[in-house]
Amino acid sequence: MAQALRLAEQGLYTTQPNPRVGCVIAHGERVVGQGWHEHAGEPHAEVHALREAGEQARAATAFVTLEPCAHHGRTPPCADALVAAGIRRVVIAAEDPFPQVAGQGIAKLRAAGIEVESGLMREAARELNIGFFSRIERHRPWVRVKLAMSLDGRTALANGESKWITGEAARADVQRWRARSSAILTGIGTVLADNPQLTARLPQSGGIHSPLRVVLDRHLRTPAGSHVLDGQAPTLVLHAASAKVNDGRFARVECVAVTEQNEALDLPSVLGLLAERGCSELHVEAGPTLCGALFAAGLADELLIYVAPLLLGDTARPLLALPSLADMAARWKLSLLDTRAVGQDLRLRLRPAG
Amino acid sequence: MAQALRLAEQGLYTTQPNPRVGCVIAHGERVVGQGWHEHAGEPHAEVHALREAGEQARAATAFVTLEPCAHHGRTPPCADALVAAGIRRVVIAAEDPFPQVAGQGIAKLRAAGIEVESGLMREAARELNIGFFSRIERHRPWVRVKLAMSLDGRTALANGESKWITGEAARADVQRWRARSSAILTGIGTVLADNPQLTARLPQSGGIHSPLRVVLDRHLRTPAGSHVLDGQAPTLVLHAASAKVNDGRFARVECVAVTEQNEALDLPSVLGLLAERGCSELHVEAGPTLCGALFAAGLADELLIYVAPLLLGDTARPLLALPSLADMAARWKLSLLDTRAVGQDLRLRLRPAG
Repeated sequence: MAQALRLAEQGLYTTQPNPRVGCVIAHGERVVGQGWHEHAGEPHAEVHALREAGEQARAATAFVTLEPCAHHGRTPPCADALVAAGIRRVVIAAEDPFPQVAGQGIAKLRAAGIEVESGLMREAARELNIGFFSRIERHRPWVRVKLAMSLDGRTALANGESKWITGEAARADVQRWRARSSAILTGIGTVLADNPQLTARLPQSGGIHSPLRVVLDRHLRTPAGSHVLDGQAPTLVLHAASAKVNDGRFARVECVAVTEQNEALDLPSVLGLLAERGCSELHVEAGPTLCGALFAAGLADELLIYVAPLLLGDTARPLLALPSLADMAARWKLSLLDTRAVGQDLRLRLRPAG
Repeated sequence: MAQALRLAEQGLYTTQPNPRVGCVIAHGERVVGQGWHEHAGEPHAEVHALREAGEQARAATAFVTLEPCAHHGRTPPCADALVAAGIRRVVIAAEDPFPQVAGQGIAKLRAAGIEVESGLMREAARELNIGFFSRIERHRPWVRVKLAMSLDGRTALANGESKWITGEAARADVQRWRARSSAILTGIGTVLADNPQLTARLPQSGGIHSPLRVVLDRHLRTPAGSHVLDGQAPTLVLHAASAKVNDGRFARVECVAVTEQNEALDLPSVLGLLAERGCSELHVEAGPTLCGALFAAGLADELLIYVAPLLLGDTARPLLALPSLADMAARWKLSLLDTRAVGQDLRLRLRPAG
């Protein structure tokens, strides 16, 4: 199953909006077929592995990281293919949460006399598709907030200058996190201040899914000539119903009105809309206001913080704008997932403590 | 030599104001004597090792982490003892920087026909006594600034509440850093806000040197009943020449006037005074003003930062008060020495980048 998970990871940047899935077909220790899902609309992992195994699939065991599908989507059901190939036993890591599949794949296999087990390395399999599970089970994307700061928790000088706090290695690492995401979210403040491209630029660019750029621009203030309006990547501009646009600035992007809440776009509505559009992992690169609002509302599922070994001082800009705390008991607790040196910088991954 | 350094480390909490020194006497791979310096006024590492080796010291090699002394201090010169024991060869890690010793120990050994090499693991040996070398070579202590902060670089809530940001393991770790220091420095702001004890509390307390408590209290405002005035540890209160005390508050401590500079006590004078008094490693636990002033003046040699996995928000108190920066090129750069998980928290050690 560990090998099947490694295969699944090959699809990290390409399977969107589908989950990353890997499959290994084996007789005991002898592997006879391997495969992973590469692009939506193309064959699933099981089909690739069965093709490689050919006649050797008969009486073999298939290890699949996600429950095989039982429905006709863009490709025929994998459960049927496993049955047809004469597989004797199927070991599944994670059950499919998708309503059209959940449990039906397992049921179909069992009905055909195949021995089925599930749950082996389930946590790792769910982690690999954490956005997919979030989208199907919680109806919102997995929200990963990326922050780059100095040791003293500052993201820019008082005058707004912020290029570059972190080093080249950290910036390259950010590109990988962008690339694995379904969408990249920012706010109008960041667009006005930094005019970011918000595209995923990887050395290996072939076949890589282009994340949707999402800009929260309540009053449609994005200036003409902004990178996010250049049509170089699919882009969605979310605004208040009252905002009107009278010029051609938004010709290359899609504009959608969302409801407002407390003088801002309603964040749960934004996330719901993105989930409906197949957004699994949402990568956020925004300023202290939007990032703080997501965090304070309990909508930030993960923080990806790059810490540069430098100090900017107390007049520099803060990491997150959060409501003032009356006492320490109210502090926001997180748990550290991992710490890694990335070039000169340190990368921390954290999630709100359960 | 690695073994000699491990022996030297045994004196981490006890040799003050002397350096930590270890010695191994060997014939080839066979160790015949080991020792380390434990307390000032007691025998040096070489003497302990020679005693253990006895007759086997003859024609042996001695590995010493610091150049053997050649002068009569509180104990007779170790160079003489090595000669008398018939040692054939001496390998030294770091040369002694002390004016009464520098080079003379080596000269004395060579004059007696002993083969001498120096420089083996010199960096590690200097690191172990970094405060001792700083005091002798730079005439100021090695200044280690301890900070405890949230992920967003905050040390206390807006209302001043700061207990406890970091966890128990981090606080226990701080006690070890206090204990290895010659002195613990704080400012009047911290005394007024937190009334700290500033003592080193270790599980193994026997024979441990008590660090000098140093309070920068320009106007002698330390309130009666403050822990730092309780006489439980040697304490030095530094104040402006103009400050007068008319009551018995300072009966159990020593008060010394130092010069002022820009409406504050002159920090180089403070450090010079402490070095004169034998202070090698100075551990600083103070607020953003004093810590920031030390750092901005280039007097903070090392930052020891405990990062707790929590957020306090932008209204909470900043890590360091530093002059505002006009552009990013002026940012204060550091280099990361090490990163370690301490309980739930993360400990970073940094030094200003050369």
